[in-house]
Amino acid sequence: VGPVWSIVVAGGLGQRFGAPKQFSSLGDRPVLHRAVQACRTVSTGVVLVVPDELIETDRRVVESSDADTVVLGGSTRARSVRCGLKVVPSEAEIIVVHDAARPLATPALFDKVLAAVTGGGAAGAVPGIRVHDTIKQVDTTTPGTRRVVATPDRRTLVAVQTPQAFRADVLRSAHHRLPADEATDDASLVEAMGETVVVVPGEVTNLKITTPDDLLTAERHLARGDD
Amino acid sequence: VGPVWSIVVAGGLGQRFGAPKQFSSLGDRPVLHRAVQACRTVSTGVVLVVPDELIETDRRVVESSDADTVVLGGSTRARSVRCGLKVVPSEAEIIVVHDAARPLATPALFDKVLAAVTGGGAAGAVPGIRVHDTIKQVDTTTPGTRRVVATPDRRTLVAVQTPQAFRADVLRSAHHRLPADEATDDASLVEAMGETVVVVPGEVTNLKITTPDDLLTAERHLARGDD
Repeated sequence: VGPVWSIVVAGGLGQRFGAPKQFSSLGDRPVLHRAVQACRTVSTGVVLVVPDELIETDRRVVESSDADTVVLGGSTRARSVRCGLKVVPSEAEIIVVHDAARPLATPALFDKVLAAVTGGGAAGAVPGIRVHDTIKQVDTTTPGTRRVVATPDRRTLVAVQTPQAFRADVLRSAHHRLPADEATDDASLVEAMGETVVVVPGEVTNLKITTPDDLLTAERHLARGDD
Repeated sequence: VGPVWSIVVAGGLGQRFGAPKQFSSLGDRPVLHRAVQACRTVSTGVVLVVPDELIETDRRVVESSDADTVVLGGSTRARSVRCGLKVVPSEAEIIVVHDAARPLATPALFDKVLAAVTGGGAAGAVPGIRVHDTIKQVDTTTPGTRRVVATPDRRTLVAVQTPQAFRADVLRSAHHRLPADEATDDASLVEAMGETVVVVPGEVTNLKITTPDDLLTAERHLARGDD
């Protein structure tokens, strides 16, 4: 397997406020530092993509991270990933994309997504966990009332997480070719090219920290040694 | 509008262990009591469906609830709802189905689902909230690796909750006609008959309590007066 590089996405233009809590502290260090360090363990290099409007304390969090390169993000998540892709060296054969707001992904989870891409025929691999809620698809074309159009079988659904691993060439092509502004994850761009993406078992403790409640939940996971 | 009856589902056969925390206390009273009381405010009568294996303290929770009728459930959620339907009087024109493990649904939410069924042309109405995770549909027919087959646009998805309100005749027909053993909600049975189900805005605080962490989150909602 050739070099692995990671892109940690911590936000983009004008996303400082109401954003995930990647600059908050969890235990003895910032959420973002934990995400970068987790990528470090499997990567030749780590690129960190950050928002443009940082208050002083958050700027210090960025500066003291273990990332090799720090770049400003774009106006959407997909654009921010592209900003990161531009500075990933061409030698990279595998690229891992990870949310800065997911501090508790384990080394084992990184190993699983990497193994699925390096071992099998998949162009991409993402962690997925069981969906507990019943999910319905609604007609959003008619304003006002939202009519249910489908209730997919819950056993066929997964809620996806990061880290997501991709063959570098495929991820670059996907971002190059497709209008990615609305994509909520990179895998969907790779799928849209007809490439195979597989789901590996995710981790319930690998939550994305977006609210103060999430931070409390993550603290309980840490205290229990769940990570 | 004719009489409204509610069915509160607290479990069925052999579901005592590993089940949702409907018998736990939240603030000054059990989760289950809160669910029954919320139904009371909009109903002529409330039927409570309970598991068969109850420890003594849980039996006391059932006995001290405000339900009019208590019945034993079946081996799946859908069968348990049918056990409840059998004892709902035929005079009922609207039937509300509610999870015993959702203690924080507000009276306003009950009003919304009822209004959608009594006012408009819908046969059923369910609360739905935004889905934050990216959801993917996987091929579950091939054992081992799970290939992604679709990533539905997240903006068209909702995570549904209870209370769910239905025209009584339609709900009875749906349960009578369809093999419902796998249904994770009643609305999907009604949809399968070709009837219209609409989604009304749900409440983030209306969580289903399945883990100790959920109970802590609900306690914070209560303390903040979020319900």
